[in-house]
Amino acid sequence: MMKISVVFYLGPPGSFSHEAAERFGSDLKPERSISAIFKRVSMNEGYGVVPVENSIEGPVNETLDGLFRYEDIYVMASVEIPIEIFLASKCDRGRIRRVYSHPHAIAEAKDYLESMGDLEVVRTNSTSEAARLASMDEAGAALCSKKAAIEYGLSNMDRIDPATPNITRFVLIGREYRKDGSRHVMLCIIPDRPGSLHSLIGVLANRGINMNMIYSRPLRDSVWKYYFYIEFSGEVDEDLFASMKQQSVKILYKGSF
Amino acid sequence: MMKISVVFYLGPPGSFSHEAAERFGSDLKPERSISAIFKRVSMNEGYGVVPVENSIEGPVNETLDGLFRYEDIYVMASVEIPIEIFLASKCDRGRIRRVYSHPHAIAEAKDYLESMGDLEVVRTNSTSEAARLASMDEAGAALCSKKAAIEYGLSNMDRIDPATPNITRFVLIGREYRKDGSRHVMLCIIPDRPGSLHSLIGVLANRGINMNMIYSRPLRDSVWKYYFYIEFSGEVDEDLFASMKQQSVKILYKGSF
Repeated sequence: MMKISVVFYLGPPGSFSHEAAERFGSDLKPERSISAIFKRVSMNEGYGVVPVENSIEGPVNETLDGLFRYEDIYVMASVEIPIEIFLASKCDRGRIRRVYSHPHAIAEAKDYLESMGDLEVVRTNSTSEAARLASMDEAGAALCSKKAAIEYGLSNMDRIDPATPNITRFVLIGREYRKDGSRHVMLCIIPDRPGSLHSLIGVLANRGINMNMIYSRPLRDSVWKYYFYIEFSGEVDEDLFASMKQQSVKILYKGSF
Repeated sequence: MMKISVVFYLGPPGSFSHEAAERFGSDLKPERSISAIFKRVSMNEGYGVVPVENSIEGPVNETLDGLFRYEDIYVMASVEIPIEIFLASKCDRGRIRRVYSHPHAIAEAKDYLESMGDLEVVRTNSTSEAARLASMDEAGAALCSKKAAIEYGLSNMDRIDPATPNITRFVLIGREYRKDGSRHVMLCIIPDRPGSLHSLIGVLANRGINMNMIYSRPLRDSVWKYYFYIEFSGEVDEDLFASMKQQSVKILYKGSF
């Protein structure tokens, strides 16, 4: 795996994004939002690590839309991080009155929280932000990573067993791209008529190429119109890209890895 | 438009869901989550009104996944509600220190909030919940609907002009379905091999049928596998459904309207 210099990730420190960023670099810098990471990368200040898809909750829209908005930012690599959530606190279990976390973690721990009786649930921007807040609250706990619990001195930890496998895939983004990878990312706007998506993905189907991801996202400036985020695996050549372009109103090649 | 008896919506009162629910019935009951609405409908206690898609933020995952999970709940009608967001408070504009709202509204009002200087932003479950909280906070404001502002006595109102058209489509859900509508909802799991999505939507393309929405959602119990939510418009018959079924591992017909 490549090791590079400055890498921005979704902070504060201890987040799952932080874990992902450690796979790619050593000079890691927290940012307060996914959009802020895109802005840094676009200003050539370094690379970014952003979540792109979770195995339960689906696509991370802010990331998909960032790749669409910043045409000169590419996907350069990918890593999967298992999401292991802990209920972590400084105080004893019985004294917890408030639980802080990101909405995804709250959703995952729903049954667990219900079994704990009447608690105030506070939504936060990230699980590591939750850990930070819980560390300053005498009756507070966080749903967060083990890393975040340690970072903020929340020494009472209980692992929440997920009902289903929970993995988040992160991608490294930057202003360069390799063309020699085996997995490819494209963003496509197709004509607004029956059969146009069928024609576009026919280009892949006819070559026996496997689509790994396809997500549609609204075009923010016109109502009920979309672009498609497509990832596929296999041998590609200029001819394939040309054929896809022929079926599209607009197409952005977003890198191979 | 049909008028029916009990309709559950995402509360508290004054939400955009409340506005949508008024189009369908008169005995309206707030619920605390989309999942809770699905549970009520599945227990045959009434109908439900849930947001399915926003023109900026895309699909409402909890609704799509509810339709997948509750096989006996169908989409019966659809309505579009323009999302007009107001900054509303009891206190004077200059005294606002905290702004409450749903993350979508916060995202939309980002520029407006930044122009107001250093404010604490508190995320809530709904815009009407935000209005309720702001009404109890001497230095609080909410980003909410006009309806919610009035409901909670927030008489200082400023309309936030959206940068892009903002419309949410809501659907009426219930345990019956009509087969005679012009718009149709299907959920499909397709074989995990190259070309299978191409074959499925080929059934529609070959008949010149227009797809209005296609969203993929993770199958929560297996990693990186998906089901597709598909809406399309046009003439359908048993033969079309049979052909789609032939291309699918599992297919759920979710109603026409």
